[in-house]
Amino acid sequence: MTQIDTPQTAAGWLSREELDASRERLPILYVDAIPVRVDGSGTVTSVGLLLRVTGHGQISRALVSGRVNYQERVRTAVLRHLEKDLGPLALPRLPPAPQPFTVAEYFPTPGVTAFHDPRQHAVSLAFVVPVEGDCEPQQDALDLRWLSPAEAADPTLQAEMAGGQGNLLRQALAYCGF
Amino acid sequence: MTQIDTPQTAAGWLSREELDASRERLPILYVDAIPVRVDGSGTVTSVGLLLRVTGHGQISRALVSGRVNYQERVRTAVLRHLEKDLGPLALPRLPPAPQPFTVAEYFPTPGVTAFHDPRQHAVSLAFVVPVEGDCEPQQDALDLRWLSPAEAADPTLQAEMAGGQGNLLRQALAYCGF
Amino acid sequence: MTQIDTPQTAAGWLSREELDASRERLPILYVDAIPVRVDGSGTVTSVGLLLRVTGHGQISRALVSGRVNYQERVRTAVLRHLEKDLGPLALPRLPPAPQPFTVAEYFPTPGVTAFHDPRQHAVSLAFVVPVEGDCEPQQDALDLRWLSPAEAADPTLQAEMAGGQGNLLRQALAYCGF
Amino acid sequence: MTQIDTPQTAAGWLSREELDASRERLPILYVDAIPVRVDGSGTVTSVGLLLRVTGHGQISRALVSGRVNYQERVRTAVLRHLEKDLGPLALPRLPPAPQPFTVAEYFPTPGVTAFHDPRQHAVSLAFVVPVEGDCEPQQDALDLRWLSPAEAADPTLQAEMAGGQGNLLRQALAYCGF
Repeated sequence: MTQIDTPQTAAGWLSREELDASRERLPILYVDAIPVRVDGSGTVTSVGLLLRVTGHGQISRALVSGRVNYQERVRTAVLRHLEKDLGPLALPRLPPAPQPFTVAEYFPTPGVTAFHDPRQHAVSLAFVVPVEGDCEPQQDALDLRWLSPAEAADPTLQAEMAGGQGNLLRQALAYCGF
Repeated sequence: MTQIDTPQTAAGWLSREELDASRERLPILYVDAIPVRVDGSGTVTSVGLLLRVTGHGQISRALVSGRVNYQERVRTAVLRHLEKDLGPLALPRLPPAPQPFTVAEYFPTPGVTAFHDPRQHAVSLAFVVPVEGDCEPQQDALDLRWLSPAEAADPTLQAEMAGGQGNLLRQALAYCGF
Repeated sequence: MTQIDTPQTAAGWLSREELDASRERLPILYVDAIPVRVDGSGTVTSVGLLLRVTGHGQISRALVSGRVNYQERVRTAVLRHLEKDLGPLALPRLPPAPQPFTVAEYFPTPGVTAFHDPRQHAVSLAFVVPVEGDCEPQQDALDLRWLSPAEAADPTLQAEMAGGQGNLLRQALAYCGF
Repeated sequence: MTQIDTPQTAAGWLSREELDASRERLPILYVDAIPVRVDGSGTVTSVGLLLRVTGHGQISRALVSGRVNYQERVRTAVLRHLEKDLGPLALPRLPPAPQPFTVAEYFPTPGVTAFHDPRQHAVSLAFVVPVEGDCEPQQDALDLRWLSPAEAADPTLQAEMAGGQGNLLRQALAYCGF
């Protein structure tokens, strides 16, 4: 294990090679977060979508998503990925319960479920997370766009999201009463 | 209908007599809210319980609870009762989804369910609501006390709560992972 | 109280006139049930929709829906309405938890929410209910049709359902992972 | 990879050594199932607990629990572990939604959460599963005992369960309205 200074390779964590090996043998635990703005009564007024460059060089709308590390709490992982993509001032308000609103199963083989990840079998706990602060897209996110629930419900927009994430967006809207 | 100046008797709403009559004939829709303080990761750090004087002159710990009015949204009713009991500066953060964490069925006959209300058959949608601001007990609430989840889990405290609300407190703690 | 020949007018329940009066003054508690067929792993394979004649003489697809009676358990009401519409041999398998998957707020004024009921303000607890037995449409239901999840997801079909029930169907499908 | 005589070592799955290595580096995805008997209205009438011999030779009450395999659906894993522990005639009725009622995070370090697994960091999706058929304890389960919800709520019984599973039992009962 060649230790380089990223969180993923700290003690007890995985090198790129080890992670690649595990990805061929074990389901990998993920979290997906759908950042939302809410009004004073908690009703969702807009949904935040990232603009990312995919592995194939395409530009795609995406949810906040990432792996849960060894010995990391699920809610810590949600916070870490929100901060990574939205910046440190987003002020996310995670739900008090550990229950995700759904579980998305990304299979390496397309068609097993509505979700697909060619790299791995990822099982993702999905949360809707109100954010109250200022969001600044970070790292590999080119942009963050806030859409109304009606705009986010557009089937064309959802169909263009990679890996079936449009389904998760649709399920999140339904969970929030839209 | 003798109109007196309380919200309950505004146009389309119920006089005391009409409400009493309906209470003998229909299930009445209620909301229960368990106010909580959370840390930066959303984990519950304390639970707010009211100290109330019951109809029988006893002092009892209680949840925030009340009726949903005609043509009132459920989440508006939750906000209204939180503000009524905790004051206007409590800054409650209602969940973005309309799904309650459970439904408590208060029967006028004791023993049908774990919940009991001698006045009526009330069906209550229960929500855990993080509050971020300053809470000042209002109206018929004598006091508000913040307990740790461990303190709130005390079976003796829960057994002393009226109408079986201790069960709802217990279920709320379990829902939040305690 | 003069009418005694229906369950709704038994002791402690409402005459038609009394119910009409309450409907103008109180939110009325309802349940909505989406009957489904599931395979051995619990995955939904089809969704049951009723064909009803609406009050305006139109034919419309509909969910199983109805009022909760005074002193009736919510789950008893769900069972009663399922039996009323699907017959006594449907063998519904109600979920073990009292938590509905969502709450639909039908307002008498259109546009307040996505749900509308010109007769009343109804607040409905919605459940997805697997049924294992033989279903025979009863009473005012003309027919029962089993659709695949993909067929039930058709926006045109959903838009034609009365009172916004198509939204509830859509939310039920999303809750079940579709 | 030398062992081929168990499902765990089929193509793409893990040898014991590989699993041990991953267990020190990645959260491992688990499922926990609480088998219940329900009455005709879906109300839980009894809860099934296994009697197991723990790694330390002690006898302990336990839930149905186990790992999710590579490229295995979560609900298939729940079914597989139920069948493994309760036998092939148990007729489990998995819920139609993929949402677990809670997520239990078992940490190798005691005290981080209420759940502890000295072997690994396991994140478990927990489901309450009604079973309708005949249950016969299998393999390393010595016995299956059906307890009433009141018996299963006994704090002493719950405290004796290994790894904090008593907390999960308690949360399952609360979720089911007890």
